[in-house]
Amino acid sequence: MKIGIYPGSFDPITNGHLDIIQRASKLFDKVIVAVLENPNKNPMFTLEERVKLIKEAVGPYKNITIDCFSGLLIDYAKKKNAKVIIKGLRAVSDFEYEFQMALMNRKLDSDVETIFLMTSSKNSYLSSSLVKEVARFGGCIEGLVPATTKDAIMKKI
Amino acid sequence: MKIGIYPGSFDPITNGHLDIIQRASKLFDKVIVAVLENPNKNPMFTLEERVKLIKEAVGPYKNITIDCFSGLLIDYAKKKNAKVIIKGLRAVSDFEYEFQMALMNRKLDSDVETIFLMTSSKNSYLSSSLVKEVARFGGCIEGLVPATTKDAIMKKI
Amino acid sequence: MKIGIYPGSFDPITNGHLDIIQRASKLFDKVIVAVLENPNKNPMFTLEERVKLIKEAVGPYKNITIDCFSGLLIDYAKKKNAKVIIKGLRAVSDFEYEFQMALMNRKLDSDVETIFLMTSSKNSYLSSSLVKEVARFGGCIEGLVPATTKDAIMKKI
Amino acid sequence: MKIGIYPGSFDPITNGHLDIIQRASKLFDKVIVAVLENPNKNPMFTLEERVKLIKEAVGPYKNITIDCFSGLLIDYAKKKNAKVIIKGLRAVSDFEYEFQMALMNRKLDSDVETIFLMTSSKNSYLSSSLVKEVARFGGCIEGLVPATTKDAIMKKI
Amino acid sequence: MKIGIYPGSFDPITNGHLDIIQRASKLFDKVIVAVLENPNKNPMFTLEERVKLIKEAVGPYKNITIDCFSGLLIDYAKKKNAKVIIKGLRAVSDFEYEFQMALMNRKLDSDVETIFLMTSSKNSYLSSSLVKEVARFGGCIEGLVPATTKDAIMKKI
Amino acid sequence: MKIGIYPGSFDPITNGHLDIIQRASKLFDKVIVAVLENPNKNPMFTLEERVKLIKEAVGPYKNITIDCFSGLLIDYAKKKNAKVIIKGLRAVSDFEYEFQMALMNRKLDSDVETIFLMTSSKNSYLSSSLVKEVARFGGCIEGLVPATTKDAIMKKI
Repeated sequence: MKIGIYPGSFDPITNGHLDIIQRASKLFDKVIVAVLENPNKNPMFTLEERVKLIKEAVGPYKNITIDCFSGLLIDYAKKKNAKVIIKGLRAVSDFEYEFQMALMNRKLDSDVETIFLMTSSKNSYLSSSLVKEVARFGGCIEGLVPATTKDAIMKKI
Repeated sequence: MKIGIYPGSFDPITNGHLDIIQRASKLFDKVIVAVLENPNKNPMFTLEERVKLIKEAVGPYKNITIDCFSGLLIDYAKKKNAKVIIKGLRAVSDFEYEFQMALMNRKLDSDVETIFLMTSSKNSYLSSSLVKEVARFGGCIEGLVPATTKDAIMKKI
Repeated sequence: MKIGIYPGSFDPITNGHLDIIQRASKLFDKVIVAVLENPNKNPMFTLEERVKLIKEAVGPYKNITIDCFSGLLIDYAKKKNAKVIIKGLRAVSDFEYEFQMALMNRKLDSDVETIFLMTSSKNSYLSSSLVKEVARFGGCIEGLVPATTKDAIMKKI
Repeated sequence: MKIGIYPGSFDPITNGHLDIIQRASKLFDKVIVAVLENPNKNPMFTLEERVKLIKEAVGPYKNITIDCFSGLLIDYAKKKNAKVIIKGLRAVSDFEYEFQMALMNRKLDSDVETIFLMTSSKNSYLSSSLVKEVARFGGCIEGLVPATTKDAIMKKI
Repeated sequence: MKIGIYPGSFDPITNGHLDIIQRASKLFDKVIVAVLENPNKNPMFTLEERVKLIKEAVGPYKNITIDCFSGLLIDYAKKKNAKVIIKGLRAVSDFEYEFQMALMNRKLDSDVETIFLMTSSKNSYLSSSLVKEVARFGGCIEGLVPATTKDAIMKKI
Repeated sequence: MKIGIYPGSFDPITNGHLDIIQRASKLFDKVIVAVLENPNKNPMFTLEERVKLIKEAVGPYKNITIDCFSGLLIDYAKKKNAKVIIKGLRAVSDFEYEFQMALMNRKLDSDVETIFLMTSSKNSYLSSSLVKEVARFGGCIEGLVPATTKDAIMKKI
């Protein structure tokens, strides 16, 4: 069974993330959406809230699991017996950073491969931080995040 | 009447900003230089000081107005009846970020167009933060910012 | 009266070009779509055919003129009394090349400004050459070019 | 069964290609290395020679098939019942071009996904054309291409 | 005597830095590795520790001096009678930033030239911050930093 | 004695090339400007003419030699006992290509180092081919190439 891990902060999930999750679910037998517990950052949503919002958004896909992790991604992948890390690409600056991380992960464990999927062009400008910024200033985020995520953001601000 | 908005932090205005303002003033009937009030950042100059320094620098251009705003740029543009957002481009990393912002703004209001002007190549390395850093360490900033801005920076440090 | 020139080979016009033409028509009093006569290249459509296809595509816009030119763009701009060159941006490689051309044009005549508009993200992958390649191999080009252009391509191949 | 297609000119195969083929073979049940018959180009090796060189290089991998195709890649993928196109990424310029092709292929058939794998950093500068250029001028290409490919290049020049 | 300065934070030195230092030592009569005292950042190692780790790593090269500086790099270069600043390049994002700094330094003193050396491709993903992050989460940093530096990191965490 | 080679087609020399030659002459004991004899291209100037134009342009620098070469650059460097290849950088696309070539040259001979110098920002848009194109269409190339080169271009067209 081929297992792929799609890691991220998901604070919160956007339609761009959802797009990548759905594409990945067709490529692998099982996809684990792995929410990073990052103690250094000051997130809008708690780890539990972020996991819950993803679960609500990806509900109907049966080969998708939502989980959280801390520490090195590569250690988490080994623990889950996953051989593939899935990353979404939007633009050149994404690519540079992701390339660096993928080469480091390959050095740490050459058995785990990083693959890149292209975000749909209609989501190419989306990021969690930009969505939150727009929402904080009263802008409309309809169509940028799943409906339940939109409600959750509105409650926070 | 075609109105363009040139938004930014302008902490403080540089000769690169001034170059874009002068180019923009030839393209539109009216250009509003809009200083962003960003409560999260710790600026060198207050909002009022930043507005005053721009006014002193662009003095002789009659179709240029200096203003300040908070909140979403697109809301401010609507309030001012401006259909164009003007951004200066220096390099690839500028382009990536500006592209993302412009697509988000287009989503928020498709009636407002973002246009990009090229900074003069002699200003291509200028940024407010780099100028401040050079000044703080005693470097000469002659020719990088307008004369009155230079004096204002010197007083601050 | 502010006149902008949108130059290109337009062999043939795509929906990406059309998108830029429509955006530009809202920014300037008059937009001249200027088809470059490039004797070195081996086009699919003659200069007259390319002009005709653009005319059919942009028909309803009253402040748009279709013309053709040879020689230096900057000389053509001067002849037409246009102070603005309009270019569409899709990606980083576009930017690099366009930046170089814009700086050269500024050196040749500093009175003419180059402005950049962003292609709609749904057209970000379109180019005349790619559309022709797809059509030659029997791929569907519906939605990539205007309807009459599609018919014209089909007749050629 | 998940089938992936790795398309290219392979004129001839390099160690960079071989690296991607081996990575891909671990991700999918079957990988088809598909050599493009491109009548416009003037290749060093015939289609048959290119297929033969790949076969010799990838010999020991049992889930890898070598084939050739002409026309649209997406049509070939459908014919082979493959849902994945595999591309290797080396650098930013690769990324721009590949992004454009992948978005076009997605438009032509949204059921086929393009995934990107990272070339090993030690192969990041390799390309078929650069290897041929080095060989033509008498440079050593040991370690840049498989051993049999090296011999084949030497015979041609 | 041609003197080159290789400036950086070196918190701590990586094998990528060491690679550049060794290449630079062949190009110039004397290379000064200049550790920046940056009071704003919160380093893992003190200035003295960083200097000591570099000294242990580059021990055998007789034309290399390790020093530290604060303030403007260009002032330090003048004080040391150095006409060359040496920077390592890894990727596009490096290039953009380094280009900006180099142009600013050229403006501040046109007698000092910045030259760029390419990091070995096997070190292309290395950075001090990434190495520290990996180490903090228990990952293996063997081969990423000099042996004594590895021990020093282990003691800190 | 440190010898650096500055290779190129120089068809013809531009002020951008001249800028790099002058910067390089301060860094090394001797700089060889090496004109590539490229039989595949169709140059405006013969090899002899290109060498002559460079000689006229760089006349007053005593540690600069003008030469021509064919074949692999790395073999020429070895023959001339040069340990350094000098390249000018203008933009990201330059960087990608030059990086690839430099890594290949390092593979062919790890004793020869490639260093990159930054073109002056006022020359950042210059290239031989763009200058020739402008001249062919009657544009003014004053200030883009040395005076004698300008006259030589004018005679050719």
